[in-house]
Amino acid sequence: MINNLSGWNDTIVALATPPGFGAIGVIRLSGVNAIAITNTIFPSKDLSKQSSHTLHVGFLKNENEILDEVVISLYKNPSSYTGEDVVEISCHGSAFVQQQVIQTIILKGARLAKAGEFTQRAFLNGKLDLTQAEAVGDLIASNTNASRNAALNNMRGGFSQSLKDLREQLIQFSSLIELELDFSEEDVEFADRKKFIKLINGISASATTLLESFKLGNVIKNGVSVAIVGKPNAGKSTLLNTLLNDNRAIVSEIAGTTRDTIEELININGVLFRLIDTAGIREHTTDIIENMGVVKSMEKIKEADIVLYLFDVNTTSVYDLKIIIAELAQQNKTVIPVGNKSDIIGNKDQIKLDEFNTALISAKENIGIDDLKNKIFELATDNKSLTENVIVTNSRHYEALQQLDTSLQDITLGLQNNIPSDLLSLDIRRCLYFLGEITGEITNEDRLDYIFSKFCIGK
Amino acid sequence: MINNLSGWNDTIVALATPPGFGAIGVIRLSGVNAIAITNTIFPSKDLSKQSSHTLHVGFLKNENEILDEVVISLYKNPSSYTGEDVVEISCHGSAFVQQQVIQTIILKGARLAKAGEFTQRAFLNGKLDLTQAEAVGDLIASNTNASRNAALNNMRGGFSQSLKDLREQLIQFSSLIELELDFSEEDVEFADRKKFIKLINGISASATTLLESFKLGNVIKNGVSVAIVGKPNAGKSTLLNTLLNDNRAIVSEIAGTTRDTIEELININGVLFRLIDTAGIREHTTDIIENMGVVKSMEKIKEADIVLYLFDVNTTSVYDLKIIIAELAQQNKTVIPVGNKSDIIGNKDQIKLDEFNTALISAKENIGIDDLKNKIFELATDNKSLTENVIVTNSRHYEALQQLDTSLQDITLGLQNNIPSDLLSLDIRRCLYFLGEITGEITNEDRLDYIFSKFCIGK
Repeated sequence: MINNLSGWNDTIVALATPPGFGAIGVIRLSGVNAIAITNTIFPSKDLSKQSSHTLHVGFLKNENEILDEVVISLYKNPSSYTGEDVVEISCHGSAFVQQQVIQTIILKGARLAKAGEFTQRAFLNGKLDLTQAEAVGDLIASNTNASRNAALNNMRGGFSQSLKDLREQLIQFSSLIELELDFSEEDVEFADRKKFIKLINGISASATTLLESFKLGNVIKNGVSVAIVGKPNAGKSTLLNTLLNDNRAIVSEIAGTTRDTIEELININGVLFRLIDTAGIREHTTDIIENMGVVKSMEKIKEADIVLYLFDVNTTSVYDLKIIIAELAQQNKTVIPVGNKSDIIGNKDQIKLDEFNTALISAKENIGIDDLKNKIFELATDNKSLTENVIVTNSRHYEALQQLDTSLQDITLGLQNNIPSDLLSLDIRRCLYFLGEITGEITNEDRLDYIFSKFCIGK
Repeated sequence: MINNLSGWNDTIVALATPPGFGAIGVIRLSGVNAIAITNTIFPSKDLSKQSSHTLHVGFLKNENEILDEVVISLYKNPSSYTGEDVVEISCHGSAFVQQQVIQTIILKGARLAKAGEFTQRAFLNGKLDLTQAEAVGDLIASNTNASRNAALNNMRGGFSQSLKDLREQLIQFSSLIELELDFSEEDVEFADRKKFIKLINGISASATTLLESFKLGNVIKNGVSVAIVGKPNAGKSTLLNTLLNDNRAIVSEIAGTTRDTIEELININGVLFRLIDTAGIREHTTDIIENMGVVKSMEKIKEADIVLYLFDVNTTSVYDLKIIIAELAQQNKTVIPVGNKSDIIGNKDQIKLDEFNTALISAKENIGIDDLKNKIFELATDNKSLTENVIVTNSRHYEALQQLDTSLQDITLGLQNNIPSDLLSLDIRRCLYFLGEITGEITNEDRLDYIFSKFCIGK
């Protein structure tokens, strides 16, 4: 447990809203002097005498100069986000005014908050555990229903509860082992080792479920990249446009921060897919593989989780398709063969589509596009429900769970080999350590600083 | 007066903070149903039963889906910015989450606010007059001490008070004239026309003071553009850098929204100067004027309010300087001759500097830069105090004041020519009309819509 953070008794300040032009901007203070500092520039009222959770309108003044007309939101320790006294100042939305107010507050004794420091204090004050604190960051970064729901669930302690359950099982297991240890001098094997193995298998199964949820968690949190490859004139651009057009309105509304790639984002059933367009790549070779538009696209394919191999059903032979799918399979990619121009199907060269589980579409006529989307979605999510109770979305948690899993395997192996109980006991303590690392019960300052540094300033 | 705005009884909603990535974002609702609509998605409490100016933490839910954990700020009619019921929702800073919340609120019966509509409602509800409402927009756009102070002073009614004073004087004048009118049938010239002329001159003088403050107001609000011109190797780039380096830290901190031109903004005594860099322009001619680096810079000079003509004091002749300054004077520009490299002054070609009121500097050695800045500042502001009580900063007000001024001149002329009192009375009514236009007592819906459309959404 950490409780001696450097500067723990100081007061921090930061802009909590995005920089830029808007109607208002909110400046947040937290710490023992948050109210006293605000009082020095808010002459209308003594805020220390006001109730928590109240709003106060007035002018901010530095000496005789009026800085702004503001609204103060007052939260008194411990009923605040951080657990400390918190003051939020709604200023007018001028970057200059906000900057002046922050500078004045710093002159009066606060210091600029580091990234994530408000949430870090909330964690250190026991308002939330580390997984909940990290979920706050995930919520701010969320850009789909699925990622929002996963973050909110973790923020509300869903994941914490699963970890608590695991912990309790481990402690129960530990006490049985300790009991055996106490009686070991009497040379009595107190409990049945088979019972231990059953117990530890149950714990392992829970850990494995959590570990396995990470694949879906990753999909939810980071989205899935999809490369569209194929011969020139297979219809890649048309397919891209057809996929985008259906979704552009929705995506463009929500993705103000990702303007660079906005034209390549689609939202399917709440999961974000990044379409990697290889349509612009030119090919001029006679080699089949290369001519199929794959080799030149390899770089793009490497970035992709899923590859759509688009071909003209009327002009592509089974032979060609086999070669290409084998080639792509070598890259360990999930491939969906997509037979385009199915609206004019029926020519002599039509291939056996079922053999490759091909999606049949007409990009131009918008035929089969919904089925294709569902196929992409199902492959990305393994057909799992996005509303599953607990989904691990954080790679730090995943790594700790992997270490926990390894330790659990060691215990199972130890039990099978009848290793002494005191050694088993050490392994269990290691397991508890990894669990504690996830929730933040066991951690160190550097590690915390690193975790919170990925937050934005003001949170 | 306007009181039948279309949709006046509806409830409006908008994001009040800048779009983008931040810790929090604030969504604002105003209108008769603001509280009822929020209640439908905030199950923790009945907000209609809570006191005004209080804060409430809870989850926003749409049907069974949790949208976010938020803080609600509650302002009850009439104690709010707009005078209506106002609810502000502090969401987590995800554009997706904010968008979903706004969409849900719209589904529950609100509509998206137009630009400036919250302030427009504040005006229509009599919370502030039109000059104060416009000052809110100016405050949000303010980027220096001077522009912030002018906006705050207007927001607090400083300008309104001056207009009220003018109005009272006009009404006093009017009643004297009307009195004369009442008795006119008795063929008695009741009041001394000279006294009238004196009165109207007093009113004119007040109007003229306001009109004249607009030059300064424009400088404060829009800044001043300064072109640096001169021969190649006169030291333009060095001067630009020296001017910028002193200020860059301050400017870069405040001007997050003007990144494109940030390297060319400096703040001198609270006024913003935009340095127009002509240093990159290449000249290859033998003509004196052209060689002096002016003709090629003409386009830049046309944009400038002030021209710094930079020359090497050691190699420039009085003859050359005379020609160039005459040329620049033809463009109706304020020119400051700046003699550079004064640290190595004393060569045989040294020119008579006093003749042109030259600023002597060494850009490289940072000599004379503060004096140059003061010279620029004084020329821009005519040496007037930036803290003068009332400064007209708005061109709409300026235009109305010009029309007022013309009408006042008509009255003076009428008095001199002994025109009948009833005609004078019409002129006075015209004066009152122009004053009423400024404060918004006399206006129409289209005009209001135009004024507020220049605001940002959410204000």
